[in-house]
Amino acid sequence: MTIRPFLPPTRTLMGPGPSDVHPRVLQAMARPTIGHMDPEFIGMMDEIKKLLQHAFRTKNKMTMVVSGPGSAGMETCFVNLLEPGDKVVVCRNGVFGGRMKENVERCGGIPIMVEEEWGRAVDPDKVEGSLKNNPDARFLAFVHAETSTGALSDVRRLVQVAHAHGCLTIVDAVTSLGGVPLDVDGWRIDAVYSGSQKCLSCTPGLSPVSFNERAMEIVRKRRKKVQSWFLDLNLVSQYWEGGAQRVYHHTAPINALYGLHEALVILQEEGLENAWERHSRNHRMLRDGLGALGLAFCVPEEERIPHLNAVAIPAGTEDGPTRKRMLEEFGLEIGAGLGPMAGKIWRIGLMGHSSNPKNVTYCLSVLKTVLG
Amino acid sequence: MTIRPFLPPTRTLMGPGPSDVHPRVLQAMARPTIGHMDPEFIGMMDEIKKLLQHAFRTKNKMTMVVSGPGSAGMETCFVNLLEPGDKVVVCRNGVFGGRMKENVERCGGIPIMVEEEWGRAVDPDKVEGSLKNNPDARFLAFVHAETSTGALSDVRRLVQVAHAHGCLTIVDAVTSLGGVPLDVDGWRIDAVYSGSQKCLSCTPGLSPVSFNERAMEIVRKRRKKVQSWFLDLNLVSQYWEGGAQRVYHHTAPINALYGLHEALVILQEEGLENAWERHSRNHRMLRDGLGALGLAFCVPEEERIPHLNAVAIPAGTEDGPTRKRMLEEFGLEIGAGLGPMAGKIWRIGLMGHSSNPKNVTYCLSVLKTVLG
Repeated sequence: MTIRPFLPPTRTLMGPGPSDVHPRVLQAMARPTIGHMDPEFIGMMDEIKKLLQHAFRTKNKMTMVVSGPGSAGMETCFVNLLEPGDKVVVCRNGVFGGRMKENVERCGGIPIMVEEEWGRAVDPDKVEGSLKNNPDARFLAFVHAETSTGALSDVRRLVQVAHAHGCLTIVDAVTSLGGVPLDVDGWRIDAVYSGSQKCLSCTPGLSPVSFNERAMEIVRKRRKKVQSWFLDLNLVSQYWEGGAQRVYHHTAPINALYGLHEALVILQEEGLENAWERHSRNHRMLRDGLGALGLAFCVPEEERIPHLNAVAIPAGTEDGPTRKRMLEEFGLEIGAGLGPMAGKIWRIGLMGHSSNPKNVTYCLSVLKTVLG
Repeated sequence: MTIRPFLPPTRTLMGPGPSDVHPRVLQAMARPTIGHMDPEFIGMMDEIKKLLQHAFRTKNKMTMVVSGPGSAGMETCFVNLLEPGDKVVVCRNGVFGGRMKENVERCGGIPIMVEEEWGRAVDPDKVEGSLKNNPDARFLAFVHAETSTGALSDVRRLVQVAHAHGCLTIVDAVTSLGGVPLDVDGWRIDAVYSGSQKCLSCTPGLSPVSFNERAMEIVRKRRKKVQSWFLDLNLVSQYWEGGAQRVYHHTAPINALYGLHEALVILQEEGLENAWERHSRNHRMLRDGLGALGLAFCVPEEERIPHLNAVAIPAGTEDGPTRKRMLEEFGLEIGAGLGPMAGKIWRIGLMGHSSNPKNVTYCLSVLKTVLG
């Protein structure tokens, strides 16, 4: 057995993530590794925290990066906030609401499901109905931008409803952060998690999270220890928050954090509003082109994630072979449908560094060829 | 607030990890990101599995990489194997045995502690005594190379004792893999986890694991779902093991895996036995030099990890200021003591790419100056 170094092929990433990673981020990841307790590294962590507070629009002290992908960020929220027996109203309008349900159950919580048609936003009225029927619910959990269907929900309104019924909110912002308006403090979100590889255009593997004081109060006053040692915020916070005195918890993913730092610096340079506007502008260009090709969107216009475009696969077009041809012949990756949407939809991402007119043009041109 | 790109300082990493990362690994991490379902990427994952089987000396089908640091690898073993009420004999001769105890408790298991003096290997006779007193114990868990103290335990013997009493074994090989002999199949280890940033000289953030069939049988036949969705091997295995048909579980840390692939290719090129011999040779050179400086080892010679040298801080030398000077003036990182060893010992690592005569010479020279 002799295995040689791996040289990846050239791709254009227009699926549901990862998106094309900015060359500056790749370059940052190749910088020499230093120690996780090195004062220079601790200083960089403090900068990441500031940059994330800017991106999330929050002053939350507990704003940090989980050393794992978005799923680990999701789990961080549930294992830290829930105690066995806690009722959680979970909205499911796609795959990731289902994953939240799994998380609640595995924490010994009781999920109360609010089901929504896949491809639609979460309905605040249905949520309100469920909260009225379950006055003992402690949390409302939902996904801002449902990556599996392309639907965007109204976070501000959902948080209002939850708070009116005494519930704290857990919000999945994996696909929304950096791509569409998200205002953690303005909308009074209690706990939020995101991912590095969508609109931030960093490599996958890290999950930024933010908890407000109300949420952290719950974490600090738990009756039962957090079931995950690795994700226990009472421990991790001593590494991310200790001022000059940091306590070792686990060895941080040094180079991945170099990459996230650079991605957040790039976002700061562009400006958050400008990034939102760019995602929206390129979406409109793609939307018009897809329309001209006769491809139909799965999500009503006012509920669409601009940077994740779910379209119905045209009748007579085979899913797998067509995407295979796009990948092999054109190096272009678009996303398949997940779960019940498999074989029915494609998901075309325009996220972060991938959101540019050249990619839009290329994708439309390739689609025209393969749909011939 | 304007934050600029982070340019790390030049360091020589001779602490307990991360070690100096090989330039080829850094280069690999900067290669363009491709999708986690891309057939080329899946092919690379298969190569990583083969390279890990080689490094672990195992044919275990369930040999893969957890998308998180060593602590997540540890947690993967405990949450997948334990059911509430399970008794686990846990050996503690340093910090990481204590972390295992935390894991057992947080899974609802019952840890039976076998305590050993910090700085000594685990005593198989004490373990046997504990197993005799606890015939209902289901697992024996211990650390091969205790990173916090520098002590190396006899895995082969401990596994024999465990199996003679009907227990499966969970072995921490975070600091041993690639540095000293480790033979997962030959020694009949049931579940093992390691880390990317020690003797493999990859960046931190990934945890290679391997489970034999006996362990996987337990995982597959669990009564209760694994408490972590993120680490549930019944789910993750469908992504790492599915042949041509992979099921998406979470977005893999693509570029970090590029780096690990390259690190394992380098290990394969050098040869496992040659890597062990190199770690041993450079250890002897360091040991002789430390002796000449009058520094005393904390661990008896026959129980030492060759690549993690724990020495007593000489009387009259201040811990913090001395290490600070080494770092700031000479760019040299060595490790502090952890827990009860804090302020009493230094840990000098010679791991992976850091294990070379130039580093040995430099470290000895710097120590001579600062201890002057």
